[in-house]
Amino acid sequence: MLGNYQQRVEQQLELILKTPCAAEQVRQAMHYSLFNGGKRVRPVLVYMANQLLGGKLDHADSAACAIEAIHSYSLVHDDLPAMDDDDLRRGKPTCHIAFDEATAILAGDGLQSLAFDLLSQDNGLSADLRLKMISILARDSGYLGMVGGQSIDLSNEGKLISTDQLELMHRHKTGALISASIEMGALSSTYATQENLDALLTYAGAIGLAFQVKDDILDIEGNTEVLGKPQGSDLAAEKSTYPALLGMDGAKQKLALLNQQAHASIDSFGEAAQPLHWLADYIVEREY
Amino acid sequence: MLGNYQQRVEQQLELILKTPCAAEQVRQAMHYSLFNGGKRVRPVLVYMANQLLGGKLDHADSAACAIEAIHSYSLVHDDLPAMDDDDLRRGKPTCHIAFDEATAILAGDGLQSLAFDLLSQDNGLSADLRLKMISILARDSGYLGMVGGQSIDLSNEGKLISTDQLELMHRHKTGALISASIEMGALSSTYATQENLDALLTYAGAIGLAFQVKDDILDIEGNTEVLGKPQGSDLAAEKSTYPALLGMDGAKQKLALLNQQAHASIDSFGEAAQPLHWLADYIVEREY
Repeated sequence: MLGNYQQRVEQQLELILKTPCAAEQVRQAMHYSLFNGGKRVRPVLVYMANQLLGGKLDHADSAACAIEAIHSYSLVHDDLPAMDDDDLRRGKPTCHIAFDEATAILAGDGLQSLAFDLLSQDNGLSADLRLKMISILARDSGYLGMVGGQSIDLSNEGKLISTDQLELMHRHKTGALISASIEMGALSSTYATQENLDALLTYAGAIGLAFQVKDDILDIEGNTEVLGKPQGSDLAAEKSTYPALLGMDGAKQKLALLNQQAHASIDSFGEAAQPLHWLADYIVEREY
Repeated sequence: MLGNYQQRVEQQLELILKTPCAAEQVRQAMHYSLFNGGKRVRPVLVYMANQLLGGKLDHADSAACAIEAIHSYSLVHDDLPAMDDDDLRRGKPTCHIAFDEATAILAGDGLQSLAFDLLSQDNGLSADLRLKMISILARDSGYLGMVGGQSIDLSNEGKLISTDQLELMHRHKTGALISASIEMGALSSTYATQENLDALLTYAGAIGLAFQVKDDILDIEGNTEVLGKPQGSDLAAEKSTYPALLGMDGAKQKLALLNQQAHASIDSFGEAAQPLHWLADYIVEREY
């Protein structure tokens, strides 16, 4: 189910950074970071939302690539010594290890501007729709979204926080970009209504949080080799997690509840929402 | 001449980051970095180009703020320990000193998305024009522009390079954003023609490079107290500079030539270009 869309976005991404330029070092670091073995969940969501509402995939390509560029930049900066200080991601050296720290900072910066460059190009959609997508991506990736979530995460470190505070952090840190994926995908169909968008954003909120709860559970129960990062690394970093706050049983109940909410939110779309139902379950059942 | 436009952009910038949010730490770091005593040369260029072609200042505000947000983010990331490792900028602690390194990385990231957020908002200009500006800013600030220039700068460090290579670096690192300022300002007037744009981009290229040559000269002849950074810091960092490659006399001749080119490029605009003539001289004559 993921395969076709994963392939599509990888083909599109390959077209973007292929031409050598005056700044080869940073171009190569950007390319390296874009092709780091990621599952492409956000681009897949863009395509699924586009198809759910009867859109053309061609209209969703730039949003799919843009959201992955933003996601990649956030991983590159997140892995830096001053942030999470990770040497490996999915078993491969992180950008600042494969290149150097300065280049990793610049590669992240370049991936962010690349995202907005992509969305600004003519792809057959109206200028108004493209502007709307830029506005969504800029807001959801910035200090009111993803960047804000990372900052909240830093402030929380070593502190005992409530589940509400944990949820606030996650809704910013990862939820905002999941919502942006779904919203841009829906808009790219040209058939989005406010009612559609509301239902899809509820779905996005539920799967985004489920993704995080599942991550926390895998960090304790998962297998380092499959995860690509040391199991138990959240505990070592004194990060608040759902199992820590709710207990393992509580965390699993929370996950089941979010999964239910995700399914219920898209009931009104009927059969057409099958891929989104599948994805909600994939997030809950994945082993890494 | 700078005063009115400086004031205008500062008033506009004050409106943007004033509301407390869930991620206070990073919002405050972004605000701190935006108000670091900069001369606002790029926003001034936006307004001047807008006025030269008979535009409305209201239409230029978002581009003026956006270009300053991009410039600020680049300074915050440039000052990081892994990059230039500067503790002071214009006599004030740099962002990672006033806050911490992780927050400075995030503040830079947030300022970049803020720039695109601003340009995507409705300001009375057509969606097509706003998209065109986003495209220009994304390109000129990314790996094909400013970020690329910083990467070229890193690769050049400790190497003997030619004046052509030095110029290539500067045209990316600082020239691209100066060009973007002028181009966005001209477009915001709604009266830009290709002929106008070509002349203005020649002007931008000349003053952008002149700015850099002057910086190199000030680094040797300037006064640390006035500069706000230790005089001679380029020499200490083994950076190639115009005085190092051309000698001090050669660098001053180069500066004079670029100043001449800048004036000549906008002759066709007659009296209306007076502010741009003034700015070309200001860049050459400034003491810091």
